[in-house]
Amino acid sequence: MKAQIITIGDEILIGQTVNTNVSFIGEKLTNLQVEVIKSTVIGDNDELIMKEFEDAYNHADLIIVTGGLGPTHDDVTKSCVVRFFDTELVKNKEVLHDIKEIFKRRGREVTKTNEEQALVPKIAEVIRNSRGTAPGMWIKKNEKIFVVMPGVPYEMTEMMNSTVIPKLELLLKDRKEFTVIKNLMTTGIAESHLYEKLGDIDELLNGSKLAFLPNQFGVKLRLTVKGANQDECNNKLSELEQRIRTIVGRYIYGKDDEKLEEVIARLLIDRSLKVAIAESCTGGLISSRLTNVSGSSAFFERGVIAYSNASKVEILKVDEDLLQKYGAVSLEVARLMAEGVRAISGTEIGLSVTGIMGPTGATPNKPVGLVYIGICDENLCTAKEFRFGDDRLLNKDRTSQAALEMLRRNLLGIPYDE
Amino acid sequence: MKAQIITIGDEILIGQTVNTNVSFIGEKLTNLQVEVIKSTVIGDNDELIMKEFEDAYNHADLIIVTGGLGPTHDDVTKSCVVRFFDTELVKNKEVLHDIKEIFKRRGREVTKTNEEQALVPKIAEVIRNSRGTAPGMWIKKNEKIFVVMPGVPYEMTEMMNSTVIPKLELLLKDRKEFTVIKNLMTTGIAESHLYEKLGDIDELLNGSKLAFLPNQFGVKLRLTVKGANQDECNNKLSELEQRIRTIVGRYIYGKDDEKLEEVIARLLIDRSLKVAIAESCTGGLISSRLTNVSGSSAFFERGVIAYSNASKVEILKVDEDLLQKYGAVSLEVARLMAEGVRAISGTEIGLSVTGIMGPTGATPNKPVGLVYIGICDENLCTAKEFRFGDDRLLNKDRTSQAALEMLRRNLLGIPYDE
Repeated sequence: MKAQIITIGDEILIGQTVNTNVSFIGEKLTNLQVEVIKSTVIGDNDELIMKEFEDAYNHADLIIVTGGLGPTHDDVTKSCVVRFFDTELVKNKEVLHDIKEIFKRRGREVTKTNEEQALVPKIAEVIRNSRGTAPGMWIKKNEKIFVVMPGVPYEMTEMMNSTVIPKLELLLKDRKEFTVIKNLMTTGIAESHLYEKLGDIDELLNGSKLAFLPNQFGVKLRLTVKGANQDECNNKLSELEQRIRTIVGRYIYGKDDEKLEEVIARLLIDRSLKVAIAESCTGGLISSRLTNVSGSSAFFERGVIAYSNASKVEILKVDEDLLQKYGAVSLEVARLMAEGVRAISGTEIGLSVTGIMGPTGATPNKPVGLVYIGICDENLCTAKEFRFGDDRLLNKDRTSQAALEMLRRNLLGIPYDE
Repeated sequence: MKAQIITIGDEILIGQTVNTNVSFIGEKLTNLQVEVIKSTVIGDNDELIMKEFEDAYNHADLIIVTGGLGPTHDDVTKSCVVRFFDTELVKNKEVLHDIKEIFKRRGREVTKTNEEQALVPKIAEVIRNSRGTAPGMWIKKNEKIFVVMPGVPYEMTEMMNSTVIPKLELLLKDRKEFTVIKNLMTTGIAESHLYEKLGDIDELLNGSKLAFLPNQFGVKLRLTVKGANQDECNNKLSELEQRIRTIVGRYIYGKDDEKLEEVIARLLIDRSLKVAIAESCTGGLISSRLTNVSGSSAFFERGVIAYSNASKVEILKVDEDLLQKYGAVSLEVARLMAEGVRAISGTEIGLSVTGIMGPTGATPNKPVGLVYIGICDENLCTAKEFRFGDDRLLNKDRTSQAALEMLRRNLLGIPYDE
């Protein structure tokens, strides 16, 4: 099955909105073994929409349209659907009921404009919208499927999950080939090193696929396996994953889109451990990431953003003479900061960073991108040097990720060798 | 001038990457009065790319293509360009020089694969890439412009800004109608209140356009004016901006995509003031935002992430009895935290937040979304209550924005009344 995704809305073409719907829908369809051959964005313009419907209908088996279903004059998707399928609008009682319920919950009166949203093309099966007033549509004609949903991501994603995907799964249940995709999230190793460590890729993959997707947080390994049924896929996938883990397992911190801070939160909670953080160059980013996890007060005790030298001495009790001797950006000070924050907070673990994020602040011996990360627990107190790039915000991201990875490896007893 | 944007890459269709290039390019073109009629995404597939080039060439005057210019076998954009324009590849010395320089800076050897990136279609003018090895191309044929750039946003945005936009401006300088767009960034006021305060919008706008674009950081006001030349537009725009500022100027913190932390950084540096931050519920986010600004050590002295009660007492010297009496999430404790962090750091200003970000942590009297923000300077020490929503990450964003806005208004002597 080949699919095209059509997004309707001027706000995307003029750059006011980033189109996140396409990546959401694209991933869901790919997981269902549906091949997305194209994605188009067009403005709220009848003629261009009609032309795009026509074109998609000729090339794809499944067309998913989002956007342009609002109640105002510039929302023209529904009238285009009526024209395209040469059908008419009929009032749908269920939808009208849903709309009235939503307004009742919000304590507001239903207006005539909103009531008109209950008009649905006669040819369409309604996809109910539990989060908004615009219903979706499922149209099947000549073996082609045409799905129309609102563009609001909060509404569309729910409709995809609750209705569209189950209906597609049912349609595709007799298919001959299945696909399963899994992402393994790595960090602390460059793409090229990862590639080299994995050795003969063709032999490793044995017909499956592996993509390397790097960003500043690490390299995502996307595994794709195909098989005659779901079980065969799962078995192949788990064998492949095992082979990969045997070689580079130490760098894999999670799966799919898991974040490193979520993995660490679980590890700390499982072990009833608390951490305190002393940050200089990352300015609070590491602590902010850890406290993005709900329930973080169970494992995060405090953070100190010791930006000035005075704050390093006063709060973290870094020895002033050593600070002068080695400089704030040094292995020694990173270690002392980790030691200090652990001591003042009484946590099992202290983690620290100090570095030069750029573009300013470099000295002849200390270039932009130089970072030291320190970690202390009851057994050891150590620090490590890192060299990142030129971009300030990317450097903050990379430093925070490296620090969290040092913490993860510390918790799991994995040496940090890269 | 009508434009189409073509993005090439499987990773977007399968949902691995969100296509931010389109919104960036779309906004830039809209500002130049170029109408973006369509945006398409296609996979790394020769035939589909050729078909899309053909189609775009028939409907648009300007075609901007990104992606598929990497050095590996699955990058086919360049060979499609060669086929489409019936031209040949020639080695470009400048590009080869740029590539060698990049590898020199990185301390690595130039491989044969990388050298091949210096091959450019004969028909194309090269768009130099200062941030990567793949050159861009500018092709003009039969009054149509065809621009090809790498898909990496960091590289593409620089090439757009330094080369493509100036070249387009030159081409468009004789046009009959000009558009100027300006964004005014507001915060601390809801969209509906802003709308009501502005009164009779049609009278206010007098033919120009105004869009309200809300997100968790505030409401962006997008002003669009048209005129026969640049000067007329600028005059109209500055009159309109003045009328808007007269009514709601206190809520406007910046223009275009300026960030609140950048505005505050300038204000603090201009006044030679330093700030120290005490954060509880935001977990370091406010400090991290301030230290995203290059040179932040000039105005940011330290931050304390006083997550536990012990840390509030030990580092910030919050009175333990008052902490017990009022609870950590209270007006009193917010004020004491701001006072405390100012006192220990010796800065002119202390800023604090304490609150419940959710989804857990609420009590019968203190719901999720309840936040107190405190600020202290040499004249006053005050705190204010805020009520945000249910979503933890949005609440962190909203709280950090409100705290920074309290700081901005404090610096400018604007009362915080909403």
